[in-house]
Amino acid sequence: LRSRLPQVGTTIFTVMSALAQQCGAINLGQGFPDFDPDPKLPEAVNAAMRAGHNQYPPMAGVPLLREALAEKIEALHGAAYDPGEEITITAGATQALLTAVLAVVHPGDEVIVLTPAYDSYAPAIALAGGVARFVPLDAHYRPDFDAIAAAITPRTRAMLVNSPHNPSGRVWTAQDMQRLGTLLAPTDIVLISDEVYEHMVFDGATHHSAAAYPQLAARSFVVSSFGKTYHVTGWKVGMVAAPRELTREFRKVHQFNVFTVNTPMQHGLAHYLRTQPEAHLNLPAFYQAKRDRFRAGLASTRLRLLPCEGTYFQCADYGAVSDLPEAAFCEWLTREVGVAAIPLSAFHPDPVERSTVRFCFAKREATLDAALERLARL
Amino acid sequence: LRSRLPQVGTTIFTVMSALAQQCGAINLGQGFPDFDPDPKLPEAVNAAMRAGHNQYPPMAGVPLLREALAEKIEALHGAAYDPGEEITITAGATQALLTAVLAVVHPGDEVIVLTPAYDSYAPAIALAGGVARFVPLDAHYRPDFDAIAAAITPRTRAMLVNSPHNPSGRVWTAQDMQRLGTLLAPTDIVLISDEVYEHMVFDGATHHSAAAYPQLAARSFVVSSFGKTYHVTGWKVGMVAAPRELTREFRKVHQFNVFTVNTPMQHGLAHYLRTQPEAHLNLPAFYQAKRDRFRAGLASTRLRLLPCEGTYFQCADYGAVSDLPEAAFCEWLTREVGVAAIPLSAFHPDPVERSTVRFCFAKREATLDAALERLARL
Ligand SMILES: CSCCC(=O)C(=O)O
Ligand SMILES: CSCCC(=O)C(=O)O
Repeated sequence: LRSRLPQVGTTIFTVMSALAQQCGAINLGQGFPDFDPDPKLPEAVNAAMRAGHNQYPPMAGVPLLREALAEKIEALHGAAYDPGEEITITAGATQALLTAVLAVVHPGDEVIVLTPAYDSYAPAIALAGGVARFVPLDAHYRPDFDAIAAAITPRTRAMLVNSPHNPSGRVWTAQDMQRLGTLLAPTDIVLISDEVYEHMVFDGATHHSAAAYPQLAARSFVVSSFGKTYHVTGWKVGMVAAPRELTREFRKVHQFNVFTVNTPMQHGLAHYLRTQPEAHLNLPAFYQAKRDRFRAGLASTRLRLLPCEGTYFQCADYGAVSDLPEAAFCEWLTREVGVAAIPLSAFHPDPVERSTVRFCFAKREATLDAALERLARL
Repeated sequence: LRSRLPQVGTTIFTVMSALAQQCGAINLGQGFPDFDPDPKLPEAVNAAMRAGHNQYPPMAGVPLLREALAEKIEALHGAAYDPGEEITITAGATQALLTAVLAVVHPGDEVIVLTPAYDSYAPAIALAGGVARFVPLDAHYRPDFDAIAAAITPRTRAMLVNSPHNPSGRVWTAQDMQRLGTLLAPTDIVLISDEVYEHMVFDGATHHSAAAYPQLAARSFVVSSFGKTYHVTGWKVGMVAAPRELTREFRKVHQFNVFTVNTPMQHGLAHYLRTQPEAHLNLPAFYQAKRDRFRAGLASTRLRLLPCEGTYFQCADYGAVSDLPEAAFCEWLTREVGVAAIPLSAFHPDPVERSTVRFCFAKREATLDAALERLARL
């Protein structure tokens, strides 16, 4: 059996979560909250099941949810997406990303990926028969537009971007988005904009969605996640907004991938978005408090903090503590210190070692404090 | 924008469900029940949400569910699958099929598909860069092993089979399975066995799973669906059982497609399988009663009944009623008679017209009777 993904093993998030569980370590690796959603949300799902919403919903998603989403996007970004033909509900953001890539990337097409990058991007491109062109972010994890421009060729079919950025926590500025728009304007490159951490931006900063920039929106799949925003990563509900023509191609693939997405969860989310339309507004403050608590604790360890403008991830340099490569350090940290983290090398296609690891701070205060207590021993 | 699936439009099931809704027709098109699951099942999901099972489960699925499934498969088919390394929970069977194809089919590889076939098979193969080799079932929708043998080439990488068969309702015999095993033995062809209607077989017949035939099991992805078995098609939970090596490749793709599957539904299903381990045993009688009621009603119309050995679909020939091609007849039937059905041409890659349509009888008696009353006017 010849592998379609010979380079690929089990995703680092699974590996580290399994190791954390095996070692009884505090899991700050894989990105998910260790607390529950607003109880109103599962209650709405339960009501949907009791109301008989247990069979296939429309292929593109429950209309009420798409409508609520269109209103939310319009309110946030001033962008008008037609819920009927421009918004599709997906089985999580990862499925949206693979489906978008499969929908537009032909064998031999090139796709620009800024590194470090979420570990599903490159395999998605490989499965479509495309060729990933990796362009490193700069030393501060900011986009290097000269390097991006230099990577564009007549074969460039798509580009994947991600802000707020996993793993670095960087948030693109309005100027970044404008420069991207200018750069792509003369091309027919499709932008796939992974915005799953859209509501986790700190210190009063703003998330700049591709949806908010007409030049970009016209060529973009804008991908987001209900799981991240509403603390239900296990419900696996995401979404993609894209102009009609892109959505048409997306749905051709989507219908033969998952066909459609969990009905009760969609109804529950639709009800929740309708009745709690401002629920996401407290997210920056909610996560900023966790970030600040975690940073304050880390500041007194021998780990060096990197900036964190957004996402629920905090990166740290362990160079003063250990000479181990990142993956080995994370294994050691999990086994010996009892705290699981993610090596940044897992986000790099090439062996890049910067003695940097990523912690997830989407955790209860008690969990963060317990982890900090262990990390203080370093 | 050049389409990756230029031949593909919106799946017929979506088109006909939308038309049925628009016309207020009784929807016997898309296959889903119009009744609810056992209330214990949503109750178990609700309990899982309340117990805090709302974040990512393990990538391959909730262990309790995989274990319950392994026991069920062992009991049904005498086949021992390791829940840890040989069973994976999927976001429905369609996702399992695409993922299996993406996992083993390389660009240029050939995949044998027996027609008529479920409409996701060919696009899945196209997305993998493979080439579908269509082999027609015989005039009675039975496998033609000489034709299959003749279609095998050194490039044949995989074969998709489906029993009980959608749309024809045919069920493969033990002899069919043995002949398939003999045919594939000298090859390294991977079998993808779509068995989503496994528990809907009538008149005392038996479903013969690829899992039950060691020669086949060793090379097979066995795909099934919780949605079909437990009347929750909208929950989008399926599964695949396959030997270690195949599962390893499957999960490489799965983790970068949906990553994992809805946690509360998985826990709810696991609890239900544990506490109601015999729930599927009443399915043959349950659906046979519906089939018999529907067939008895159709027998007094001018539609000619085809055999129905399994699935929840009944095919009928409308040659005595109309000269319209199948798609046009279904549109007419929906608009003018008020009953939606699926044209068999939607399952054929080439324009094949046999004046045959498919009705779904997974409906309440009142729904079936109302549809029959309308069809009696033909
Ligand atoms: C899909 S598992 C990983 C969750 C996540 O987005 C991350 O940890 O980066
Ligand atoms: C996934 S929608 C179609 C349901 C089904 O399996 C069918 O109607 O054939």
